[in-house]
Amino acid sequence: MFYVSLPPKKDKNQMKREKLILITNDDGFFSRGIARLAEVMNRLGRVVIVAPQTEMSGQSHSISVVRPIKFQQVTDSPFECYAVDGTPVDCVKLAMNKILPQKPDLLVAGINHGCNASINTIYSGTMAAAFEGCAESIPSIGFSMNSHSKDVCLDYVGDYIYEIAMDVLLNGLDANTCLNVNFPVGEIKGVKVCHQARAFWREELIEDKDNSGDTVYWLNGQYHILDTSERADFNTLEDGYTSITPMQVDFTAYGVLKKYAERFDRL
Amino acid sequence: MFYVSLPPKKDKNQMKREKLILITNDDGFFSRGIARLAEVMNRLGRVVIVAPQTEMSGQSHSISVVRPIKFQQVTDSPFECYAVDGTPVDCVKLAMNKILPQKPDLLVAGINHGCNASINTIYSGTMAAAFEGCAESIPSIGFSMNSHSKDVCLDYVGDYIYEIAMDVLLNGLDANTCLNVNFPVGEIKGVKVCHQARAFWREELIEDKDNSGDTVYWLNGQYHILDTSERADFNTLEDGYTSITPMQVDFTAYGVLKKYAERFDRL
Repeated sequence: MFYVSLPPKKDKNQMKREKLILITNDDGFFSRGIARLAEVMNRLGRVVIVAPQTEMSGQSHSISVVRPIKFQQVTDSPFECYAVDGTPVDCVKLAMNKILPQKPDLLVAGINHGCNASINTIYSGTMAAAFEGCAESIPSIGFSMNSHSKDVCLDYVGDYIYEIAMDVLLNGLDANTCLNVNFPVGEIKGVKVCHQARAFWREELIEDKDNSGDTVYWLNGQYHILDTSERADFNTLEDGYTSITPMQVDFTAYGVLKKYAERFDRL
Repeated sequence: MFYVSLPPKKDKNQMKREKLILITNDDGFFSRGIARLAEVMNRLGRVVIVAPQTEMSGQSHSISVVRPIKFQQVTDSPFECYAVDGTPVDCVKLAMNKILPQKPDLLVAGINHGCNASINTIYSGTMAAAFEGCAESIPSIGFSMNSHSKDVCLDYVGDYIYEIAMDVLLNGLDANTCLNVNFPVGEIKGVKVCHQARAFWREELIEDKDNSGDTVYWLNGQYHILDTSERADFNTLEDGYTSITPMQVDFTAYGVLKKYAERFDRL
């Protein structure tokens, strides 16, 4: 336990009556990360998993516009679980409108296999699901591991996830605010609230041939960090701390609004 | 001309030597919107179009992770034009790494057939392309029409696009800042710099059957605006003004950082 001020765990059955928790991800309903997340959330309430049936990494906030989505219940899951032929954001929209009996008390996405700090936020299907929940005024949290290994140890992050989710269930989040939580691999030195590190991916495209003999290119990104602040989420994470970045679905560059109004307004 | 203080138009050949302009969109290389945008940009510099070969609306910032991308030159275009089997963000990455001779002086995306103000920003492939350019430190602008009609009149927005792009070419944009420009249909009352209107889409899923007889669902969103400010971009647009929203690729909820550090930090 890392939050010393927390109340004792609530009676499980009581929580189950009280709290409805929607779980999704972008790695697919079968991933180890979502199983671990469901295991932890099951201690806090009634868990419903609605997740993609195939891997949807890098799908960002995409939605199915030109094709319909479909889903089926996964019968051999220990949880109530639905596999969706659609993106992570499709999953949230489907859950809200067709699967859940009422608006969930909490939306959690992950545990993502791979870091979603910094610029990764905008490519991430996991964080997109959290943003979709946030836009719908559901307290929402994305959880990610700073490792792409499918075998990465997920045991030690359980207590952190439990405590952060419990805090959000008890105290809520501000309007239009969700959390982007990233865990370091191995020992956790502590937890720091951060801002999104400024960075970008520059691609080296790797040439290949497809079955028709046509030249194709694989994206192979090189990460470039532009932020030296110790409270930049990526840097915090690399230092061995869990980063918590409060986020909002608002791209407005508020710092330049006044200056740009003087420059561009024609009233 | 709506910017009275602008210098006279530069000699076309001089601009062409000076400025390299990358054009993309999410409606596809064949759309009327991108053709109109290229026509206007051709007055400002050397135009290169790198755009999806099929419609990519709603693809947001998605990238091709599990499959390679390919492209071919479009030989019957009046401009240097490449059609890409990939998303809008793939197009920018491909252009930067395989097609353009150097970093472009300007990236413009659009003209999108459909409004990209408000929460639409996060679903939009057009704005995603502008964000990708912005992350790569290219002055970037997304242009959109508040109409999904493929036949919408695009004549009257030309001068506005020209003047805004010229201003950005001459004066640049702040670091990590791009512009989201939305045009009203019909007469333009003026131009206002705005913030992103807070809103969300709530879906009504429309049941259908696929070829196998399985039940499928089409997303059918209902727009809900939560922002009454006159300077909220969606509201400005509906009032008949062109909205210019300065945007950044940073989701951090700066307003709550200190409060959340007190709540979640464990050092």
